[in-house]
Amino acid sequence: MEINGERLREDIEANAEFGALDVEGNGRTVITGTEANRKAREYFVERLEDAGLDVRVDAVGNIAGRWTPESAPRDAKPVAAGSHLDSVPEGGIFDGPLGVYSALEAVRAMRGSGVEPSRPIEVVSFTEEEGQRFADGLLGSSVAVGERSVEETLALTDGRTTLADALETMGFDGEGRLDASEWDSWLELHVEQGKRLERTDLPVGTVTTITGITHCAVEVLGEANHAGATPMPERTDALVAASEFVRDVEEGANEVGETTVGTVGKLNVRPNATNVVPGTVEMGVDIRDVSYDAMDELVSLARDSLSRLESERGVETSFAREFDLEPTEMSDRCRRAVHDAGDAANIELLEMHSGAAHDTMHVADVTDAAMLFARSRDGISHNPEEWTTWEDCAAATQVLAGALASLAR
Amino acid sequence: MEINGERLREDIEANAEFGALDVEGNGRTVITGTEANRKAREYFVERLEDAGLDVRVDAVGNIAGRWTPESAPRDAKPVAAGSHLDSVPEGGIFDGPLGVYSALEAVRAMRGSGVEPSRPIEVVSFTEEEGQRFADGLLGSSVAVGERSVEETLALTDGRTTLADALETMGFDGEGRLDASEWDSWLELHVEQGKRLERTDLPVGTVTTITGITHCAVEVLGEANHAGATPMPERTDALVAASEFVRDVEEGANEVGETTVGTVGKLNVRPNATNVVPGTVEMGVDIRDVSYDAMDELVSLARDSLSRLESERGVETSFAREFDLEPTEMSDRCRRAVHDAGDAANIELLEMHSGAAHDTMHVADVTDAAMLFARSRDGISHNPEEWTTWEDCAAATQVLAGALASLAR
Repeated sequence: MEINGERLREDIEANAEFGALDVEGNGRTVITGTEANRKAREYFVERLEDAGLDVRVDAVGNIAGRWTPESAPRDAKPVAAGSHLDSVPEGGIFDGPLGVYSALEAVRAMRGSGVEPSRPIEVVSFTEEEGQRFADGLLGSSVAVGERSVEETLALTDGRTTLADALETMGFDGEGRLDASEWDSWLELHVEQGKRLERTDLPVGTVTTITGITHCAVEVLGEANHAGATPMPERTDALVAASEFVRDVEEGANEVGETTVGTVGKLNVRPNATNVVPGTVEMGVDIRDVSYDAMDELVSLARDSLSRLESERGVETSFAREFDLEPTEMSDRCRRAVHDAGDAANIELLEMHSGAAHDTMHVADVTDAAMLFARSRDGISHNPEEWTTWEDCAAATQVLAGALASLAR
Repeated sequence: MEINGERLREDIEANAEFGALDVEGNGRTVITGTEANRKAREYFVERLEDAGLDVRVDAVGNIAGRWTPESAPRDAKPVAAGSHLDSVPEGGIFDGPLGVYSALEAVRAMRGSGVEPSRPIEVVSFTEEEGQRFADGLLGSSVAVGERSVEETLALTDGRTTLADALETMGFDGEGRLDASEWDSWLELHVEQGKRLERTDLPVGTVTTITGITHCAVEVLGEANHAGATPMPERTDALVAASEFVRDVEEGANEVGETTVGTVGKLNVRPNATNVVPGTVEMGVDIRDVSYDAMDELVSLARDSLSRLESERGVETSFAREFDLEPTEMSDRCRRAVHDAGDAANIELLEMHSGAAHDTMHVADVTDAAMLFARSRDGISHNPEEWTTWEDCAAATQVLAGALASLAR
């Protein structure tokens, strides 16, 4: 069974047009509920139908296309694979779409090759994996595993609009709930977003563990005041205090461990005028590790930093651990299927952990799951410079197709 | 001659309604070209006309109301006084409006008291003193002193709209150019925005020198990347580098001298998402002192900080000194008039420098000028907590009126 790399490339390149940036590289911004998101979804549905799959959109906008081969018993649980179509602001064209369209290509290849699976295959795109508008990430999959109810999810708001309204605007307010626990197993192919495959000169990796992830919301309250008329000793500058916090998070992450990462990715100043001493700073902090204890350790260091700033700089601070997922082990059965597929295709696989969160973290809670990584150029992602060669996309898709076929055998 | 504190209060309270914030205190946001700015301008023109002054709006939206007493020779140069009606985002209700409406109240008091000045009195409101939309500050006065041409000023843009369009939208696109060099002298009453009057328990101050002011635009370029998949050692985080710069500016200001202030008031992160390592940070830096050498010293320290960050953190940086004014001495003649008025009103005045920039910095380049300060509560300004008691407003206005009368005698 041979996958068609050219057909895969055409889909990914077509999808890259939606929300495309006018900058160097291949950037796109596809946020839930935008015109770009609607177009990306409509194109995906069209391609699923072209491939003869039965398409379903659930109440939170998750999209699934199912191939039910005649060789499969009516009651057979499907094997599922996919990823997401949304992006971070100014993100790349492979993060998400590679997993969605490689799964579709795998099904097209299986159908073309005349294999007779004993299970249906389901190609899936989850809503808002990147968490840029309505939630903090992995939204669609959190509903598909029952961690979040459809009702509370539809009521989520970006401050002005509810997810329900955003989905309706796009015409992707479907019915029911895609239920991942009904799947026999799940595979997700994703770009590595790191440099390990590049360093080891291998195109494809198989994931052992996905790091846990914590998002914390931090606020620093000082006193807005006149930048010219307020002597240095009389200031309570929220930004100077926040700057020490940013440094402390970096220092803490370096202290805790080799696999620990800590990032202040978001920072907003108020009133944010050159001639006004900053009165308020809001920050979003991202903390991850393969060890949950290590994550807790960095969270404590961040809290300690704020306590110190309160006593030393007279600011008030608040800290909320808003989003928290423990590290996730991949299933042995699925990993074996991936390894066998690699052997069959003569593609050597690198065993590695994932520093990035993926919908697979949720799916693994309710069924056997595993992930494949495709080599990223310079480890760059969430950036228009994100790149994976079409050869590597094809190699990883070949392994994915083989693994799906063996899980569905 | 007695000024009417109640009449003054009514004008300042009425003006405070335009752009009023829905927060504790008495905040307002009045940016050039907004609905709030239009209403504030229309109310001011109405009050000038109520007082029988001849109103004129120039090409850049500066507003002047002139009283030409019969006692004044046709060719007599006017004595002018005023300030501005715009504010910073979420600013206070006295910063600007006190100087505008106290000047109007002074003229009303003079007319009511039957004094017979030998010079006309001009009440002035300059366009965009706070520099929040089209320029970096003191915009209207820069045109009134010929430092900036009407043409280039009207062509200024906020990125989408030109000042010309903004003025036309408000109906304040007048003709000609208000020429400060035609004034015999100029006085501006403003809130202190500091704590020195409060500490010395005096309601009114007279300014000796206005500090110079420099605004610098700084950019730090790192590499946007995935917050989970990028190990700490492989990052070029623009925000961590910018945070060190913010600290260095504070430290530098503390080093250089007692009267030196340095502020990073504006900071914008891109892409500004919790799960993305910051790729770019833009900052606005404000540097002031009564000594221009001291200002230069802090600018050098800021540049040194960026050079260090380039070598130590691998970021690229840019630094532009976009706005620069040297310290300004007040005129002896005008200061004497203020002192005499204080004596006549039995109000003791504190001699002090101004840490804040004011339109008077420009006017002093072309004619004799001085400033008065009214006591600020807790030294707070550019903040809804900005406050000056109505008694202090009246006392300062009494001194202003006396000084204007003696300059126009």
